[in-house]
Amino acid sequence: MNAPLVIPDIAPPVSGSTLLFPVVGNPVSQVKAPLAFNALFRRAGIDALVVPLELPPESVVETCRGLLASGSIGGLLVTVPYKKTLFELVAQPGESARLVGAVNAIRRGAGAAGETGGTLQGDLFDGVGFLAGLRAAGHEPSGRKVLVVGAGGAGSAVAAALLSAGVAWLGIFDVNAALAGALAAQLQQHFSASEVVALRTPSHIACDIAVNATPLGMKAGDPLPFDPASLAGGTLVADVIMQPAETPLLQRAAQRGLRVHPGRPMLDHQLPAYLDFFGLPRAARMAQAWLRENHSNP
Amino acid sequence: MNAPLVIPDIAPPVSGSTLLFPVVGNPVSQVKAPLAFNALFRRAGIDALVVPLELPPESVVETCRGLLASGSIGGLLVTVPYKKTLFELVAQPGESARLVGAVNAIRRGAGAAGETGGTLQGDLFDGVGFLAGLRAAGHEPSGRKVLVVGAGGAGSAVAAALLSAGVAWLGIFDVNAALAGALAAQLQQHFSASEVVALRTPSHIACDIAVNATPLGMKAGDPLPFDPASLAGGTLVADVIMQPAETPLLQRAAQRGLRVHPGRPMLDHQLPAYLDFFGLPRAARMAQAWLRENHSNP
Repeated sequence: MNAPLVIPDIAPPVSGSTLLFPVVGNPVSQVKAPLAFNALFRRAGIDALVVPLELPPESVVETCRGLLASGSIGGLLVTVPYKKTLFELVAQPGESARLVGAVNAIRRGAGAAGETGGTLQGDLFDGVGFLAGLRAAGHEPSGRKVLVVGAGGAGSAVAAALLSAGVAWLGIFDVNAALAGALAAQLQQHFSASEVVALRTPSHIACDIAVNATPLGMKAGDPLPFDPASLAGGTLVADVIMQPAETPLLQRAAQRGLRVHPGRPMLDHQLPAYLDFFGLPRAARMAQAWLRENHSNP
Repeated sequence: MNAPLVIPDIAPPVSGSTLLFPVVGNPVSQVKAPLAFNALFRRAGIDALVVPLELPPESVVETCRGLLASGSIGGLLVTVPYKKTLFELVAQPGESARLVGAVNAIRRGAGAAGETGGTLQGDLFDGVGFLAGLRAAGHEPSGRKVLVVGAGGAGSAVAAALLSAGVAWLGIFDVNAALAGALAAQLQQHFSASEVVALRTPSHIACDIAVNATPLGMKAGDPLPFDPASLAGGTLVADVIMQPAETPLLQRAAQRGLRVHPGRPMLDHQLPAYLDFFGLPRAARMAQAWLRENHSNP
């Protein structure tokens, strides 16, 4: 009898039972998450794989609904530009998802993998990841004054997480003043212990932490989202942009002698939350341990 | 700056640009193809991955249509029970697909990967694989008399491929006599150089090759699809069933001193055709070379 066509030493870890976690976005070629997740799955002995899935806007909702009915799909990771689009699929959003109206993770609520029924649940871990990354780097926001520039999905998530951590004062600026105003009002209602204000300018704000949550800095030639020169010495300047790792904003801030915090820890510190959400506590603990080893205070 | 969470030595080969080839079926846990394809992709340096995708019948067509609009999807591999179901997605079926009304591979026709338009093309490689596997094992069907038991998708594909290879006489038996009659009539019209007949019984047929193309033999306790004891000495008995590798039919035939041909070569010998269909000629050549080395005449 002929031998089957298998070359075990170089065969990737895919079986008929492999559980898939597609990263849904457009484009997806820049996505970094698969590498981190897949290394953890492999190390934890979990037969699962994160794969990229670029989908066009006209059919993204229906295709994702179809995939979430598949026993081969453990859940979806959602990235730009579909975090708000796919919120409509979710019957049971988590607190952060509901506040922002966006999700970056969706799972079947009832029943184990393989059951096709179940209510779809979703949550947004951007804020959780930003906060955990900030704290792991030794920056505790509780009781501080914070400036958040950008009132879109990332800014909303970061602002909500900072407020849940107990910042004393949070100022929100966006070039779309109405967007900033609406977000500030919504957050003020939800977090009544802190002061939340919409700002007319991001310049000369007296704060302890200033966060860029706009896309400015991803492309060469982008203007700065705000000018670090207008901030007091001792201010921490943080960015949510991951690529480039050191944005012009962070470079300028460092040149001014300010402390800086890059975008990548926000993603890395989301991993344990994602893994717990997807019912993989063992991989979540391994991610936590890795983060303690590699992302402790500098 | 903190190091990103990547563990290169154990990270599976998935990037944001990895091209996916889902195997669509239900169930899919038994699927073997991924291992063979993925080993070839890895060896050929192609950033692609075959992954399992179990889909429920009520949404399989729409979900597959959505996936085929994705730049991350290189094409679909289709397995039981959706080979006929997904035929309706395909605007341009190949000859074998059209004849049988079934597909086991679908691709976007126009435009490169990443373009979401394009006409969907599909083909059925079961027959091509069966014929190539038979020939690689030293059994040339041209000019022979052949019995095919089972007039479903597998039987139709195998019968059409054998007729295209120039068998002199082809008898078709199915417990559903109408199905066998319709297939025989359709094939006779298409292959007028050979004699094609529907049979009332699979027993005591004078033939050189007898093929089981029914599912009988997959489950313990299945009756034999036909009795090798009723065949003349020297007849070759072939099976399309892959699991178990040695079916009760083949065991019984071997005990009778007949030559036997198992199901697995049909799958292995489809690989080059699939890879060519998906526009990966380098991997196809590697698969051909592997088959020449490993599946030569016994």
